[in-house]
Amino acid sequence: MDSLDYTPLRLKKHEERRLLAGHAWVFSNEVDTAATPIRDLAPGQPVLIEDHRGKAIGTGYANPRSLICARLMSRDKAHPFSASLLVHRLKVALSLRERLFPEPFYRLAYAESDGLPGLVVDRYGDVLAAQVTTAGMEVMQDAILEALSKVVHPKAVLWRNDSPVRELEGLDLYVRPALGEVPEHVIVSEHGARFHAPLHSGQKTGWFFDQRDNRAWLARISKGMRVLDLFSYVGAWGVQAALNGAEAVTCVDASGDALDGVAANAQANGVSDRVSGVKGDVFEVLRQLREDQARFDVVITDPPAFIKRRKDVKEGTAAYRRLNQMALQVMAKDGILIACSCSQHMEAGSLEAQIHGAARHVDRNLQILARGGQAPDHPVHPAMPETAYLKAVLCRAMQG
Amino acid sequence: MDSLDYTPLRLKKHEERRLLAGHAWVFSNEVDTAATPIRDLAPGQPVLIEDHRGKAIGTGYANPRSLICARLMSRDKAHPFSASLLVHRLKVALSLRERLFPEPFYRLAYAESDGLPGLVVDRYGDVLAAQVTTAGMEVMQDAILEALSKVVHPKAVLWRNDSPVRELEGLDLYVRPALGEVPEHVIVSEHGARFHAPLHSGQKTGWFFDQRDNRAWLARISKGMRVLDLFSYVGAWGVQAALNGAEAVTCVDASGDALDGVAANAQANGVSDRVSGVKGDVFEVLRQLREDQARFDVVITDPPAFIKRRKDVKEGTAAYRRLNQMALQVMAKDGILIACSCSQHMEAGSLEAQIHGAARHVDRNLQILARGGQAPDHPVHPAMPETAYLKAVLCRAMQG
Repeated sequence: MDSLDYTPLRLKKHEERRLLAGHAWVFSNEVDTAATPIRDLAPGQPVLIEDHRGKAIGTGYANPRSLICARLMSRDKAHPFSASLLVHRLKVALSLRERLFPEPFYRLAYAESDGLPGLVVDRYGDVLAAQVTTAGMEVMQDAILEALSKVVHPKAVLWRNDSPVRELEGLDLYVRPALGEVPEHVIVSEHGARFHAPLHSGQKTGWFFDQRDNRAWLARISKGMRVLDLFSYVGAWGVQAALNGAEAVTCVDASGDALDGVAANAQANGVSDRVSGVKGDVFEVLRQLREDQARFDVVITDPPAFIKRRKDVKEGTAAYRRLNQMALQVMAKDGILIACSCSQHMEAGSLEAQIHGAARHVDRNLQILARGGQAPDHPVHPAMPETAYLKAVLCRAMQG
Repeated sequence: MDSLDYTPLRLKKHEERRLLAGHAWVFSNEVDTAATPIRDLAPGQPVLIEDHRGKAIGTGYANPRSLICARLMSRDKAHPFSASLLVHRLKVALSLRERLFPEPFYRLAYAESDGLPGLVVDRYGDVLAAQVTTAGMEVMQDAILEALSKVVHPKAVLWRNDSPVRELEGLDLYVRPALGEVPEHVIVSEHGARFHAPLHSGQKTGWFFDQRDNRAWLARISKGMRVLDLFSYVGAWGVQAALNGAEAVTCVDASGDALDGVAANAQANGVSDRVSGVKGDVFEVLRQLREDQARFDVVITDPPAFIKRRKDVKEGTAAYRRLNQMALQVMAKDGILIACSCSQHMEAGSLEAQIHGAARHVDRNLQILARGGQAPDHPVHPAMPETAYLKAVLCRAMQG
């Protein structure tokens, strides 16, 4: 397994620049297909990426079916793309998480940002949920499992290979146990709270580790407050608000399963008396709350990505505006808004502009208290803006 | 005092737009000086700002000597600029800080962001350090003191009116007790550490409250580490690193007084055995450390603003690059860099680009773990980008 066969992949003139600046992707139109035809490559084929003169840039893997036709795994001749490179990269990734987090609940590997394009691994103690999104990693699955076993000794591993982005690589979607007995639910510990997360069918791989640091804001602002948690999923925000002293928490989600999760998690943390769930479309629920003149001191808007593709920017941006405007309309005097966007195609400045516009419209003056991003187990690659997607803004909405 | 005399100040056509979008400044070239001559106004004169048709926008104050010739204090006819408005705004500002902070150590009022253009107040328990930067606030000094007494009942207040920006308003520079017995040093409590800060002659008003939340990163990454704190001032970063388990901390500053502060603060927190000071120019010290092949696991670069005016952008940007590159050259394998910039004219993206460029140059791959800004007692006004200035980046520098 360790001696891979690297087929050359030659770039056109000047097309090496992005890679030399630190990026990891080769697009199909950048390849000198006369010298090295892409269509002859097998999906996942290990390649040696070269500049137009044949000078080696590094090793990686290719997929002729994808617009991103190759990804660079290593620039180091002594340590090319191989099974043992996977072990090394996972060790380096683990060392960061062990330094940052007191307990083994985190995203262990975050794709390109950890030098592991196409691989994401979330760790729930002894249980791992792994997700492969490229053909190059798909053909390495056995090596990945071996590497994970070597580096973190998991009791169980689940392939959560049901992300739609796999379709861009011509891969099918499935969820399948890879190792050991994979439980239905896992336990997650966060800021002193304990949660049950659904591993097989939950959003992401069951838990949104990326919001952990932003949820730490709740400890400062929840005491004695009425909190509205919109798009609550299993209650990560709401239950922690209650644990931090919120007087009453309302979690809103369209999914009954999610709200069952809220109830279970509220109970597990001894705050059932202060956490309630409302099932329904969030915009509809907000309309009703506004009609009922309900008021909240803290409102969290943490929706699924409204902008999934670049062409959705306009419509999606308007949806963020509408959501936050309606949130401000059920907000008590000088209330706190936590507005989030996980849309990769939305700039942080754009989210703030929408919130500001919404606030001006309903005669509120905003103070931006903090700006957050992904937790540090989702590091951003400075040469790959694509690795940054999460925005969270903490602000106070003062009466105009 | 409460019935101010508002002279009209009429804007040219279209010049009301920025104010209507939430901004608070009027530039002298935006005034219809034929209708309302600026030069006739007294520095600090209360004004009624109107659009070109004479429709009132709000009340504020003017200064014919300044490029920013007026600042909007209130859009509310019922509550115009007055002594009692100062009381109200300070109360609203205090309510935010009391919600956010368990102890009374914070920036109580942050100028435009708290609806108090020209006024900054830092709170050290019973002692306040206040700074006025505009003629409009200068003429209100008695009212400000009264308002502060009413809202926070301080034992002592110091005017730290020595900021050079006062010169833009034609104001002289001075430091003067305003109320009670003002001590030489004050105590600051931050993340469980206690510091002495010099009130009369220290940087800012004695303490950098703005970095508080970024310094919370140290709790996660200091244990067992060798830490280098560059431009340490009185050791806020370094002493907290030691308190969080750092094996050895080196604080570097050009000021002997600052290093005396480091020693005193290390002693006050029982970490003198692990904190040492090096006096000298930071770039010179880095050169020497590099020559000595010294290695650190965590390096903090928190310099004074290298870019003070817009025309310094190029040179200042290069200085950030040079500083962080030298920091990376004394960094151990997979070390952590905390790079900061308090230059208002530097974008966050520009700081990151410099660090990334420096890292590529010394063959390091960066992972950006967190991006920080000003602590929430320095709120950002969403319509006034001028109120945002602090950037801090937490990253890991992996061997290339």
